[in-house]
This record gives sequence, C-alpha cells and structure tokens, in this order.
Amino acid sequence: MNVKYVFRIVALAVLITSIFMLVPAGIALFDGQIRNAAAYLISLGIMAVISLITVFLTRKYKTTVYAQEGVAATGISWLAISAFGALPFFWSGEIPNYIDALFEIISGFTTTGASILNDVEALSRCNLYWRSFSHWLGGMGMLVFIIAVIPQAKKGSGSGIHLMRAESPGPSVGKFTPHLRETALILYGIYILLTILCVILLIIGDMSLFDSLCIAFGTAGTGGFAVLNSSIGEYSPYIQSVVTVFMFLFGINFNIYFLIILRQFKTVFRNEELRAYIIIAFSAVLMITFNISHMYSGLKEAFHHAAFQVSSIMTTTGFATVDFEQWPAFSKAILLLLMFIGASAGSTGGGLKVSRVLLLAKNIRRTIGKTLHPRKVYLVTMDGKSVDESICNGVDAYLAVYCAILLISFAIISFDGFSIGTNFSAVTACFNNIGPGFELVGATGNYAHYSYLSKIILSLDMLLGRLEIFPLLALVSPGLWSRKR
Amino acid sequence: MNVKYVFRIVALAVLITSIFMLVPAGIALFDGQIRNAAAYLISLGIMAVISLITVFLTRKYKTTVYAQEGVAATGISWLAISAFGALPFFWSGEIPNYIDALFEIISGFTTTGASILNDVEALSRCNLYWRSFSHWLGGMGMLVFIIAVIPQAKKGSGSGIHLMRAESPGPSVGKFTPHLRETALILYGIYILLTILCVILLIIGDMSLFDSLCIAFGTAGTGGFAVLNSSIGEYSPYIQSVVTVFMFLFGINFNIYFLIILRQFKTVFRNEELRAYIIIAFSAVLMITFNISHMYSGLKEAFHHAAFQVSSIMTTTGFATVDFEQWPAFSKAILLLLMFIGASAGSTGGGLKVSRVLLLAKNIRRTIGKTLHPRKVYLVTMDGKSVDESICNGVDAYLAVYCAILLISFAIISFDGFSIGTNFSAVTACFNNIGPGFELVGATGNYAHYSYLSKIILSLDMLLGRLEIFPLLALVSPGLWSRKR
Repeated sequence: MNVKYVFRIVALAVLITSIFMLVPAGIALFDGQIRNAAAYLISLGIMAVISLITVFLTRKYKTTVYAQEGVAATGISWLAISAFGALPFFWSGEIPNYIDALFEIISGFTTTGASILNDVEALSRCNLYWRSFSHWLGGMGMLVFIIAVIPQAKKGSGSGIHLMRAESPGPSVGKFTPHLRETALILYGIYILLTILCVILLIIGDMSLFDSLCIAFGTAGTGGFAVLNSSIGEYSPYIQSVVTVFMFLFGINFNIYFLIILRQFKTVFRNEELRAYIIIAFSAVLMITFNISHMYSGLKEAFHHAAFQVSSIMTTTGFATVDFEQWPAFSKAILLLLMFIGASAGSTGGGLKVSRVLLLAKNIRRTIGKTLHPRKVYLVTMDGKSVDESICNGVDAYLAVYCAILLISFAIISFDGFSIGTNFSAVTACFNNIGPGFELVGATGNYAHYSYLSKIILSLDMLLGRLEIFPLLALVSPGLWSRKR
Repeated sequence: MNVKYVFRIVALAVLITSIFMLVPAGIALFDGQIRNAAAYLISLGIMAVISLITVFLTRKYKTTVYAQEGVAATGISWLAISAFGALPFFWSGEIPNYIDALFEIISGFTTTGASILNDVEALSRCNLYWRSFSHWLGGMGMLVFIIAVIPQAKKGSGSGIHLMRAESPGPSVGKFTPHLRETALILYGIYILLTILCVILLIIGDMSLFDSLCIAFGTAGTGGFAVLNSSIGEYSPYIQSVVTVFMFLFGINFNIYFLIILRQFKTVFRNEELRAYIIIAFSAVLMITFNISHMYSGLKEAFHHAAFQVSSIMTTTGFATVDFEQWPAFSKAILLLLMFIGASAGSTGGGLKVSRVLLLAKNIRRTIGKTLHPRKVYLVTMDGKSVDESICNGVDAYLAVYCAILLISFAIISFDGFSIGTNFSAVTACFNNIGPGFELVGATGNYAHYSYLSKIILSLDMLLGRLEIFPLLALVSPGLWSRKR
C-alpha cells in the first residue's frame, strides 16, 4: 500500500473543502454573526494547517498506484471531509450535538438530504449555504474536482483513474478523452454551466439570489436540502417546474451532455440507459397521475405534482412539493421502487442506477436461458456492444452486498422501536441517498427521533450508498493494508 | 421440447394427488358429511380420468430429456395439482370462492401456511386434513415422490435428475446414491420416519390422533397450517417444545440424515451449512430472548417462545405460540431477517436457504478482494471444496431475480391500500413460504382482506418461492417451447 499517496490525496480533499468554507464564513460576517464566522474560520484554519502539513510530509510520494490506493484514498477522504465539515455546524451552536452535525453534513456531501432538524428555517444563512453547497460538492465528487484543478505533478502516473473509478457512480467509468484531467474539467464544466442556468431560471421566477443558489445546489447535486420547512411546496408552480426539469437533467449521465456537445446525436439516441431512464420516469409519472388525480383539482395539477415527486425521488434528490405520505399506497409503492432504481450512472444521483438495473434485468434473462439450455452461450449486450462477463457478475455481486447492508442496517435501527415502514424506508432513503422516506421519516418528517446509534448507522449507509459500498467496505478489509498485490 | 414426456409427468403428478384424496374422502364419509365426501370423490374422479387418459396418450414418449423438459414438467405439474387440489375446498362450500380455495391449496402445497380463513375451526375435518396433508406432500415434493414410487420404464434415460433439480430447493442438488430412485426412496424414507416419530411424540403429549397427524404434516413440510385459530398457542408447553425441535429438524438438509445413517459423522461435522444454520438459529434465539424477557414471567418462558418462533420462522413453517406482532421492533426485525435466510437447502423449508446465503456472503468477500486486487484469483470454498464459478454467479443472479419479484409483487399488492409493513411482510412471508408476516398479516391475522388480484399475485409468489423461481418463470419464456437446444 502506497500510504503516502493515499494521505496526500486525503489532505488535498480536506484542503479544498476548507477553501470552500470561506464563502459561508463571508456570509456569516456579512450577516454580522461573529460566532458563526468564528466557527467557520476556526474549522477551516484547522483543516488548512493539518492538510498543508500532510501535503508537505508526503511530498516524496511514489507514483506507482493501483486500485487499492484509489479505493483507500476515496474512502478516507470522504470520512475526513465529513468529520471536518461537521465542525462549523457544531461550533456555531445551531446543531448542538456533534453526531447530529455529522449526520447533517454526511447527508449533505452524499447528496442524501435527510435531516435531523425539525426547523430548517431556524438555521443561519451561513449554515444553510454550507448545507446546500455540500450537496453540490459531493454530487460530482471531491476527488474528481482535485483531478480537474490540480495538475498531476508527475506525468504518466495515471493514478487519477483509480480515484475516479472509486468515486464515480455506476458499474463502469467512462473516460471520454485521453487525458483524465480533461475529462474531469469537462465534467465540472458541464456541471457548473447547468447549475448557473438553473440559478438564472430560478431568479427569473422571483426567487432571491441566496435561495436560488441553495436550491440550485440541492438540485444539481440531487441532494434535497431546502431552505424552507415546506421544501419546495411554498414556491410558485413555475419554480417547481424548473426544479422538476433540472432534477431530471442532473439525473442523466454526464457523458450524454458531452456527446451532445460533440454532436454525436446517434450515439445519444442509441444509449439504452437514457432511454430506460426516460421510459421509467414517464411511466411512473403517468401511473401516479391517475392514481392521485382525485386528490387534486384535476389531471393537470396531479401531473404537476406527480412529475415533481417522480423526478425528485428517481434522481434521489428528495425535494417535495406535497406531502406524498398522504398519497394512495400504490403511488407510494411506485416511489419506493424508484428509490431503488435511482438515477443514471455517471450522474450526480444515487440508487442502484438505471444501467445497473438494466444489466440486472438482462442477467435475469440470461439466467433463465441458462436454466433451460445449460450449454448455450448467452451474451449480454448494452448499447449494441457485448458486456464483459466480469461486469455482469459484478452487478449481481453488487446487489448481494447492497441487500446485505440494507437488511443489517434495518435490523439495527429497529432497536429504536419504530414501525417496519418507517425503518425500512429510512434505510432505503439514506442508503440510496434520497432523503425523505415514508411514515415518520416521510416528506414532512425527519430523522431527529432516531437514537445516536441509528444516526451513525444511517450516516454510514449514506456514505456506503454514495461511494457504492466498496471504497468504504474495503477500509475494514484486512486485505487492504497488506503489502502484497 | 419433448412435449409427450412433459405431459406424462404432469399426468402422473395429478394421478398421485388424486389417490391421496381418498383419505379426506374417507374422513368425510366417516363423519357422515355427504357433500364433502362428494366434493372429494368427484374431484379425484375427474383427476384420475384426465390423468389416466393422458398417461395412455403419451405412452410412446421419447426418453431424450434435457433440463428444459425437467423445468417445464415441474412448473406445469405444480400448476395442475394446485388447480385440481383446490376443487374439493370449493365444491364442499367451505371456501365458497375458487380463487380463495386456490390460494389456500397453493399455500398448502408450497408449505407456506398463509390462510385466507378467518376461522380455521369452522372447517370440516376432511378439509383440515387435506390442507395439512398438502404441506406434507409439497414439502418433499410431488415429483420426487413419483421418482421414488414409479419404476423408470426405460432404463438409463436419466430423466429424473432434471425433475429433481427443478423441484428440490437449494443452489445444487445432491444425489447421494448412483441410482436416482434409490436417492428418492431414501429421502422419502427419512421423511416418513421423522414424521411418524413426531406423531408419536405428539400423541404422548395427549394430543388426539387427528390433530397429531395434521400438526405433524405441517411440521414435517415446514408448512404451518394448524387446526386451531390460536395455531399452537393453546397446546401444552411439552407439545410446543416437540414442535420446536421437529421444525428445526425438518429445516436441516436431508443429506445430513443420510450421512448420519452411514455413520459419516466427520462429514456431518464439517458441513458448513449445518453449522451456520445452528449458529444463526441460536444467536437469534438468544437475542430475542433478552429482548422479550420483560414480557414474560422470566428468561425461561421467554426462551421457550423465542425458540419456538425462531424455529418456526427460520424453517419457514409459520406456526405461532404467541402473537409476536406484540414483540419489540428489534425482535420483529430479527424475525424478518430470518424470513429471508430461511432453512437449509435440501430440507422441506423455504427462503433463500442458508447455503445460498453463505455463498452470497462468500461472494461478497471475493468481490471486495477483487476491487482491491483486480488481477488476483479468488476461490470460493464450501465444505473444504472449491465452488464452481458458475454456481457462485448463479446464486448472485438468483438474488437479482428474487429481489425483482419481491419488489414488483410489493408494488402490485400495494394497490389494496394497506401499510408498507403489511404489504412488504405479506410478500416476504408468501414468497419465502412462511405464512404469517407482520401487522395485518401477522401471527393472529390472515390474508382474507386482500383483493383477488393480490391473492393471485401472492399465490404466484408462493409457487415461485417453492420452486425457486426458474421452473415457473421459464414457462413464460419464449425460449422454452422452441425446438432448438
């Protein structure tokens, strides 16, 4: 294990996070809140000092880097920025318990949007900003950001790809330019452009700049933290529609946007994940629209809310315009299914990812075929190309780990005595990085009533969900730290 | 596709089922219930005529048989005996709706034990007997019975192994003697002996012969239909303890008993599934005992009920001595986990099966290892032998189909508007062949309130669970009926 390299990356992640804390510190100073400003400045000071010392100490790092270093650096970086990122909430006194603060910031970075706050509106603007900005940063990923902004000191090391593989969501990572830094820059470029577009459209809808920024961060990262207790419910239908569309856009694989820029429309059209994503979303909207139409003034209003909630849940954002806890059980079941499917690979969304679900479905067909004709060879294809056997088996194995973590977490948080529906949807909503679940943790509920043990378990679930399990699970695997390869 | 062979097997399954109907017909006559006796005699008459004609028409069947014929014969046989087996309930007038009757008999044959009856005690003895006996027949399997009793007309065809593979639970089938008929005979021999032992021990506990037979059938098949509304709750602690032990014994792979007969104790001791089965059961009993101790007179009583319920749920029997719906959420969560794990492969129990769960866990370790060291070769071992790659990938794929069916069923039955906990546990309990779930379908509840659509979905889930999905799913696969191999 190349320990120096790992800690260098972790230090860079902490350093960059600390730089981003200057903004909420500025907001606090602007608002005249000395304690809050101090909370941010002290936090970022500590982070900067520790990370700069680490960067100095690891300056003689080796460039030989394998998958295990990528996995370790990613896992530890996310733990570190969470531990540090929670400090300002805690020191500002607005989230007086550190475990609660940790839950809130992990929920932010992992773009979950689950909250332990009963009253979001009581937070200062600096904390509201930091909460929402953590969605934006976590959405595309800290390490992808590092790859984009920090030139690789030593050429040809190719270490970045292991980081990107460990941090980016989906069964396989697309590197669409020969230089990884270029890929990361393009990804962040598209991300920033779409975010700015969202902010502008929100401002046009008479939203304040501050609210627009926060809501755009939550939308872009498919996070779900809002600035009002009613989430998006109090805003105008225009605002709600803008958010609906942008959540949907941020749930699309960013490679698609790159292909559109390159005018490769044929490849875009042939993309199976994109087609499945659109078909699933539209079918869900239609089914729910008809199922809830009696609750609203007509099909149009029902469609508006159905589209918003489907877009919100499927992209694992977690914003809400209505209390969907009141919807019929069938609509809730559809939403629960969407929670598992999630958004596209290579987007900022969570869940299993549409492409993984597609591969799982294709594996099922192959398995049925094999049962009937054991000696026949079945190829799984995607976008017209045959998929490597190891990727097919990989998604099946992923599902196994996924189910195991889901069930074990469910059992542990059941200790608190809430209903099966609450506990099951709490784990589902945290693990898939959605935010709200059903019953007590529904659209108008929150996670405040859970015990600290449960909050820690749910925080871990959020991290496991965002990093797609292995980078975090590998940290506790004895094989990771061995020198053998 | 060798259609003649398939229909010959189906006809034999129906024929044998009709013969077993003579017993409840006799009970009805003995009790002087003319309508009930007629219901059974007419049903068995129709079944005998249809099946004998089919046997005659297919007398010139070909002996070349592959996996697809085994799969088709098993799937269709189970559908056929269910459709016919429901007739006496329906014609006796005691279950006045055919879909309800179908649900009840499928619940019987698949050893689920889920009921649509609000008042079991209102049933006549003949129907109670048929309900419980269907557990016994379905537990070890109809087709295994055919293999055991009907000499293979044409030697060396080896067709039986495909039937046995399709009908027997678990990731792989053990054929412990060179002749399949011998294996089937030994399996049924052990099954009958253990059942008789159970009946004797129940009679010693002052239970009537009729009740003893019914409860022993439900225990042996790990089914769960009882003859009293309180399930096993009203019987003496001695009776409850006998049932606890025998449920546990019937949840063990029958190969183990064969090995014990052969005095191969070392192999028994080395069996990983057996050890895991015992360890999981005992840990669950201990955790629940402490969790519920405050509800009972002391640790001893808590242990008694914990052991009964764990044995009942883990072996997927579904008997109850207490209303475990009243237990703390943590104990219920443990029971829900046990519902998924299930009993051992090659037993009469359902669920995922302990050996499959073991393989899934070992696959997870392998997958983590592969993430860290992509080029290293990882072998999965079981009982000291390395497991074939295709079996490892097979259990992962099985889980994928399993989850897909679980979630889709859940979405459909949500249409009826019950809570997430009720619907989720209803699907879990039916699909894993347990019987009772939680909330409305809990230990004191039943499935009567579900719509007919939901009852059909849940019936299919029971069949899918018992036959481990593929034999039934393959029936709707276009590949099945093609002539190509």
